[in-house]
Amino acid sequence: MSLKRWKLIIEYDGTNYSGWQRQNTDPSIQQAIEEAITKFCQQKISITAAGRTDAGVHACGQVAHFDLDYGDRPLSGHDLAKALNAHLRPHPVAILQAEIVDSNFHARFSATNKMYRYQILNRPGPATFQRTQVWHVKHPMDAEKMHDAAQVLIGHHDFTTFRDSQCQSKSPEKTLDRLDVRRQGDLITIEAEARSFLHHQIRNFAGTLALVGQGRWTAQQVREALEAKDRTKGGPTAPPSGLFLFRVDY
Amino acid sequence: MSLKRWKLIIEYDGTNYSGWQRQNTDPSIQQAIEEAITKFCQQKISITAAGRTDAGVHACGQVAHFDLDYGDRPLSGHDLAKALNAHLRPHPVAILQAEIVDSNFHARFSATNKMYRYQILNRPGPATFQRTQVWHVKHPMDAEKMHDAAQVLIGHHDFTTFRDSQCQSKSPEKTLDRLDVRRQGDLITIEAEARSFLHHQIRNFAGTLALVGQGRWTAQQVREALEAKDRTKGGPTAPPSGLFLFRVDY
Repeated sequence: MSLKRWKLIIEYDGTNYSGWQRQNTDPSIQQAIEEAITKFCQQKISITAAGRTDAGVHACGQVAHFDLDYGDRPLSGHDLAKALNAHLRPHPVAILQAEIVDSNFHARFSATNKMYRYQILNRPGPATFQRTQVWHVKHPMDAEKMHDAAQVLIGHHDFTTFRDSQCQSKSPEKTLDRLDVRRQGDLITIEAEARSFLHHQIRNFAGTLALVGQGRWTAQQVREALEAKDRTKGGPTAPPSGLFLFRVDY
Repeated sequence: MSLKRWKLIIEYDGTNYSGWQRQNTDPSIQQAIEEAITKFCQQKISITAAGRTDAGVHACGQVAHFDLDYGDRPLSGHDLAKALNAHLRPHPVAILQAEIVDSNFHARFSATNKMYRYQILNRPGPATFQRTQVWHVKHPMDAEKMHDAAQVLIGHHDFTTFRDSQCQSKSPEKTLDRLDVRRQGDLITIEAEARSFLHHQIRNFAGTLALVGQGRWTAQQVREALEAKDRTKGGPTAPPSGLFLFRVDY
């Protein structure tokens, strides 16, 4: 018996998946990876992710862990990643890194910081290459005003206004460490960092900041919405296509 | 009669198209745009592009011109682009800009400079989001060595070694102004600028520089290949998926 805990760093295009979490009906990213592991080692293995991404949400740096008894045979991270990538074909899922970690490591509970990125394509013309990786907003937006308004949300707050009604977190209180909005050409990116987030928190931030960008809301209205602690006082939920789980730190 | 010459700046995902040029069989980008123009103005219009991209090649800044008699009715560039984008749906083709230009303007012959970008995803794991917009090379590549070798190709040369046998250019002599190779994370980009290029020239550069990046060729071997003026002495032709017509200057 030589059970080893493995940590994976995973990139995926979530467009045609029901999300990270395994379901009985629609295909999920978790299921795709678990099936690849089973094909590799002929064992039924369950994997745990840092964050459960929703249907249509992507990841550049999702982290997951699982335990594998591979006997005494040598197995490098490079070889495991290579084998899983081969078995994952043709899913748009890539194992970027695999390594053995301490048996106390937990992809979700050991995380000290998570970074998400939200992408808005802001131009009259439609998306072409990135059609399923952006939120397309035709009306011109002011990214500097969005950034200024975003700073209102930094710090420890009750984020009920930006929390989905289905959110299973015990408390609506979270500490937001960073929320930066920048424009590069037609693309506006929102980067958010915190130890953890509420369900739909970033998509609700994006929907609200879009109102600011279009001149329909001021930073002061964002502050009032936050203080109202009422989901109906926040902006709309931005679509999942623009969201990426970008990095998880431990 | 009030014939006006219009200039379009166009972005497209060339993955599922036979290329820019209209053909009798497979769908082309030119055909998609000409059909959108016809739907808009009920006239049969022919458009001319700065460069004919091959099947699977993309554009961020293709330029085309056409002549339109719209009578005395007012028509702004914004409104024309909006109408064409609506009629182009669901093609992954976006009209980024439309403007009236001098009747002497010619998308191809007036061009003073063209910039192409070639993208290589260089990592063991497969591509996910950018699957049809990169060349995936698993073997590690040294972008600095590629850049150094690329400088051998700068200047006025007979580029027969990097010219497709089907190339219709009268002369194999061209002046290459810039060929820069850079790495950002897993992505290696090759940017090329010149007044004009030979058929497959950039894809042949990319295939040859990839040999340098993998340590199989030296810069000196690139120089010898260039001086041989023989296509069989050059590296392989890199796949179309990584190539973008990025910008055309006038």
